[in-house]
Parts: sequence; structure tokens; C-alpha cells
Amino acid sequence: ASASGEGEEGRDYDAETQKALEEIDACQNEIDALNEKASEEILKVEQKYNKLRKPYFEKRNDIIKRIPNFWVTAFVNHPQISAILEEDEEDCLHYLSKLEVEEFEDIKSGYRINFHFEENPYFENDVLTKEFHLGSSGDPASQSTPIRWKEGNDLTKKGKEKNVGKGRKRAMEQKTFFNWFTDHGDPSADDIAEVIKDDMWPNPLQYYLVPDIEVENGVEGEDD
Amino acid sequence: ASASGEGEEGRDYDAETQKALEEIDACQNEIDALNEKASEEILKVEQKYNKLRKPYFEKRNDIIKRIPNFWVTAFVNHPQISAILEEDEEDCLHYLSKLEVEEFEDIKSGYRINFHFEENPYFENDVLTKEFHLGSSGDPASQSTPIRWKEGNDLTKKGKEKNVGKGRKRAMEQKTFFNWFTDHGDPSADDIAEVIKDDMWPNPLQYYLVPDIEVENGVEGEDD
Ligand SMILES: [Ca+2]
Ligand SMILES: [Ca+2]
Ligand SMILES: [Mg+2]
Ligand SMILES: [Mg+2]
Repeated sequence: ASASGEGEEGRDYDAETQKALEEIDACQNEIDALNEKASEEILKVEQKYNKLRKPYFEKRNDIIKRIPNFWVTAFVNHPQISAILEEDEEDCLHYLSKLEVEEFEDIKSGYRINFHFEENPYFENDVLTKEFHLGSSGDPASQSTPIRWKEGNDLTKKGKEKNVGKGRKRAMEQKTFFNWFTDHGDPSADDIAEVIKDDMWPNPLQYYLVPDIEVENGVEGEDD
Repeated sequence: ASASGEGEEGRDYDAETQKALEEIDACQNEIDALNEKASEEILKVEQKYNKLRKPYFEKRNDIIKRIPNFWVTAFVNHPQISAILEEDEEDCLHYLSKLEVEEFEDIKSGYRINFHFEENPYFENDVLTKEFHLGSSGDPASQSTPIRWKEGNDLTKKGKEKNVGKGRKRAMEQKTFFNWFTDHGDPSADDIAEVIKDDMWPNPLQYYLVPDIEVENGVEGEDD
């Protein structure tokens, strides 16, 4: 709807109202142009700080490599991530040597989580990536690296077999780490990806450091 | 949780890990400082554009005053606002001469919606304000101008009387414009306030201009 009619276009506004509507329309265009400029400036600030943060994230990853099992420990201590970690998956994540979250240059369009793995008994891949971007329809979409499982060690299949005998309730709870990784059903509500991007990645140290407190309280004793 | 222990504080990290944890902590502090600076810069951009937009919003309001019933027409044509507008309230909103949305200087802390009224048969106030801010607990809170209703014209009471005989279903739907204005029960989920701030205020012209289309389709014929 635009107020810039040629005068006889079927709207029965009087001349004075028609003139006022055109003036509002012009004023609105100035406001829209300012909104556009504001968005661009904010995007530039975000891009600038993404660049400034990057060397610190890289340095942090270099230091993290000197600590055995840093990431698996942080994951196990994170309430939402540990909730989906099966025992086998936790063993697998001992080979997780590096985590990276990359926001795309234009930021709004998406981000990527890279899981770097050492040689391991589970799959051939060195890097598993789950990526979120705006699809052609403008809605969020996700995709992830196809996992080349090694014979007999496909953890998504193991999970399913294990759950066969355990009834419906267990089957419904079957949200596991690798099911999450390979699931693209509702990318705009991918809680685990958001937790990794917005909570784990900004400050993983807090999660690595939690366990001692819990060990003191005997929480780790579940295997006894 | 901080990694800067004095060495013998009960954590059983080996010396090498302890040193790495302290380096991560230092690195994290640099990242946190950058995050802080990014937030400040973005806030400054938002404040700058709020100031730049302000004269255009004021100019727009001056022009709008030349159009009879601009705001009541825009409100009636807005799907979510019209859904709560009772017939009496719509009549009352014919006296609404000016709408203003003001974001507070520090923006994050809240905003204010000012409804300016001409002399009218319903209440004494010239301006009714509903305001949202972060309460002392850090949670959103709202407050609004006490309405000094004129004798026999309290529209919140009229609504209640009218609904007495209409059964439970009608009573449960009893969300009206002035009930909204005076309700502070769940300020973090005040849909109507958000629609006014983020949809109506940024571009009211589109809602003023909608009606002719609907009149042509006979939608306005409900009173026949
Ligand atoms: Ca383990
Ligand atoms: Ca009317
Ligand atoms: Mg375990
Ligand atoms: Mg009506």
C-alpha cells in the first residue's frame, strides 16, 4: 500500500488528506533509510568484533589442546549437552580435539560448528560440521557432514538396537548426540546447537572447571 | 569458577594443566572485554539512530494530526489490536490525537507508549502512558497511568457488566483495550505492547491505508 496515488485511483480521500498521506509516505521513506543504515552499522560493529575475537579464540584452542579431555569434560559437565550424551558417545568424544564455532561473514545468514577429531575407532572423518543458514525460502535450514562410520561402530545404530527392549518411554527419549548432529527436522529450534554456540563456545572453561565440585558431592558415583 | 588458584587449593590438576587453565582464563578475560566493548558500540549506534529518527517521528506525528481519525483507523485495521477493541473503546479512540513510542536512553532498560487524547467524555487524563522497564529484580515490569474515568463512563466496568450474562466462554475472552492498558500481570509477554512498538509505530501508514480494500470486499458490513 502506497499513498502516492495519481489522484483518481479510486480512494476517496479528500485533497488535504491525500496530501498529508503523501507527506507521511515521504517521511516514512526517510525513517526506513535510517533503519537500513542503522542495521548496516550494527552489522559492521559485529563483524569488526568477530574479527577482533578470532585470534583469542584460536589462541584459546591452542591452549586447550594441552589439556587432556578438555572438551569431553566440558560437554559432560554441561547440563543440556550431558542430557543427550550416551555412554558410547561420551567415549567417542574423548577423541574430540578441537571445537570451533564460526559465524558467517554476514552473520545473520548463519553459523557453523566444527568438531575436529583425532584418529578414532568410530568414524573416518577428521572434522564433523553442523551448519545453519537461511534456506532459499528465507527460513533457517541445517546440514551436517555425512559420518563415515567404521564397521560395527555406528553409534546411531547402536543406540537404536539398545533401545529395542526398553519399551516406549525409553524410545521416545532417544535424543542422543549423534542423532542431534544428523537431525535437520526443526533447525530454527535446535536447542543443542544454540547451547554450543551461545553458552559453551563463549566460555567453555566454566564447564571444564565444574566437575571437582560435583565429584566432592559424589555425583560421579553413578557407575558404582 | 576461576582457574587462578594458588596451587594447593584442593584441585588435583597437574602443574602443566593448571598453567594451561590459567592461560585460558587470561585469554577468556580478553574475549570478555571485547564482548563488553562490542555491546557498548552497538548501544551507541542504536542511540545515535534513535536520535536521528526522532525528528522524523515528530514530523510524522505533526502530519498525522491533519488526518481525522488516523490512529483509530490504523488500530481498527490492525489484526491484533482490533481483536481486543470493544465497540465503546473504538468510539473512545476517536479522541486519540497522538501516539508516541519512546525508547529509554539506555534502550535495553525499557520503553514507554504515550497515548495523547483530546477532551473526551470518558476520562480526565490528557495522556495515558504504559511503560516497560527492568524491575529491581532484573525482570521486566510494567506500569500505567491511573485512568481518571468520568462518572458512568468507566469502560473497564462497562465491559464487565456487559459480559455477565454471556457465559464462561465470553468471560474468558475478555481481553479489551483498557484491560490490556491496566494489566501488568505478565509484562515480558505483553503482545499488544510489542505490536504497538515493533509493528504499528515503525509504520502506521500501512494500517491506515488497508481499510479501502476491505470495504470493497464488504468486510465492514458486519453492522448491517
Ligand atoms: Ca568417560
Ligand atoms: Ca467508529
Ligand atoms: Mg558417564
Ligand atoms: Mg466496529
